[in-house]
Amino acid sequence: MRNIKLKVTYDGSCFHGFQVQPGLTTIQGLLEEGIQALTGETVKVIGSGRTDAGVHALGQVVNFRTTSSIPIARWKPALNSRLPKEVRVIEAQEVPEEFHARYSAVAKSYRYLIVTEAPVNPVLDRYSWRIDKPLDRKAMQEAARLLIGRHDFAAFQTSGSSAQTTIRRVIRSELSLIQGVFPPAWGETTVLAYDITADGFLYNMVRNIVGWLVKVGEGTLDVAEAAKIFAAGDRSLVGKPAPACGLWLMEVQY
Amino acid sequence: MRNIKLKVTYDGSCFHGFQVQPGLTTIQGLLEEGIQALTGETVKVIGSGRTDAGVHALGQVVNFRTTSSIPIARWKPALNSRLPKEVRVIEAQEVPEEFHARYSAVAKSYRYLIVTEAPVNPVLDRYSWRIDKPLDRKAMQEAARLLIGRHDFAAFQTSGSSAQTTIRRVIRSELSLIQGVFPPAWGETTVLAYDITADGFLYNMVRNIVGWLVKVGEGTLDVAEAAKIFAAGDRSLVGKPAPACGLWLMEVQY
Repeated sequence: MRNIKLKVTYDGSCFHGFQVQPGLTTIQGLLEEGIQALTGETVKVIGSGRTDAGVHALGQVVNFRTTSSIPIARWKPALNSRLPKEVRVIEAQEVPEEFHARYSAVAKSYRYLIVTEAPVNPVLDRYSWRIDKPLDRKAMQEAARLLIGRHDFAAFQTSGSSAQTTIRRVIRSELSLIQGVFPPAWGETTVLAYDITADGFLYNMVRNIVGWLVKVGEGTLDVAEAAKIFAAGDRSLVGKPAPACGLWLMEVQY
Repeated sequence: MRNIKLKVTYDGSCFHGFQVQPGLTTIQGLLEEGIQALTGETVKVIGSGRTDAGVHALGQVVNFRTTSSIPIARWKPALNSRLPKEVRVIEAQEVPEEFHARYSAVAKSYRYLIVTEAPVNPVLDRYSWRIDKPLDRKAMQEAARLLIGRHDFAAFQTSGSSAQTTIRRVIRSELSLIQGVFPPAWGETTVLAYDITADGFLYNMVRNIVGWLVKVGEGTLDVAEAAKIFAAGDRSLVGKPAPACGLWLMEVQY
């Protein structure tokens, strides 16, 4: 059996998340159908993680096993010709038998986009969270830095998760401003980006962190209170997770 | 009766074009339903023009007549709360009885976005036309300039139109490069924008012009041949119209 690794990018607004669900269009489902159409085999596509409905990916990684002899260079164009244009295979690679998109991952990076006080822009709103008031970026940055290192992230886990431990190591957690035109028909806009890299993520962790950061930015929580909530590990104190549409899976490291 | 003018922006990828069609979600249909929900009246929304399925708008203009006494400042928030987030009312204005979104328009501006040789980007592909080869921008610019002035644009009219004359005056017809990050999760990309302003447009005129310009850019036509096709007024020589997703209705002037 060959083991094939794919790097995939998608616009999550068009699909019901990553994981196969009967009767719904999902990324995993589309990839499995595409591979089946190419090889005649029923394959199981393993993702680095499940992205929820509405979450986008710049660099999702998946793998699957096949007996097909299709040359490795053919997989990308052949699959892309069978996928909707909102899902694109960026690269295909043959990997050792033991490679597993989920268990072999050593780190993952997410970006969350927030737009404040920007002119009405329905396109940008598909890919970010619009908050119609100014945010205190300095306070948010301070709160974001609290997360760096090895900590218990139970406060940011939505229940229903099967994770055995809520300890994770966060390598990067910071805010920055991105200036640009999104899409190119609009004028210049400034977007607030929150970047987080960790050795693993709990269910809804990034969206819960962003909800908590925005409370700090709005002044509902000061940094000391935010730190207490994080330390207490009580999900109920964190508030609502940020909407899915602002979240981007940027990269998976192996 | 009051006459209300709305400026509306939308992401056309989510809808079946502007014009009401039974069983399909259209911009006109959504606006008429929203107004009916607010006023209880069945209104007819008049657009500056119909945008096809997939065509986006930054500044579409519509008007409708109502006996409702809702203060003018309330229309924008009230309608936006009833519309999907991919359609936004930017402004509402009370206008004289004789104002007609279509017949009162004196000029309209469109932009068409083309992406060449950019990294895979399914989000940008929703809003532009991807051409995976270099284009000769200088030749395209030369061809674009041929259109400026008062001419017969029959060559760029898709049949099935009811226009009484195919003479139009083009005020602006030019190409430019836009640099930026679209969306903000991606790196910097360069997009080729074609801007055209005219006193009116024939059916599919911009998309047919862009198809013709791209033939020039690819070298399939040289500028002299392109000029001949334009002058001949024969639609069959122009080739396929450019895809709808790259087209943006930017502004309507009154």
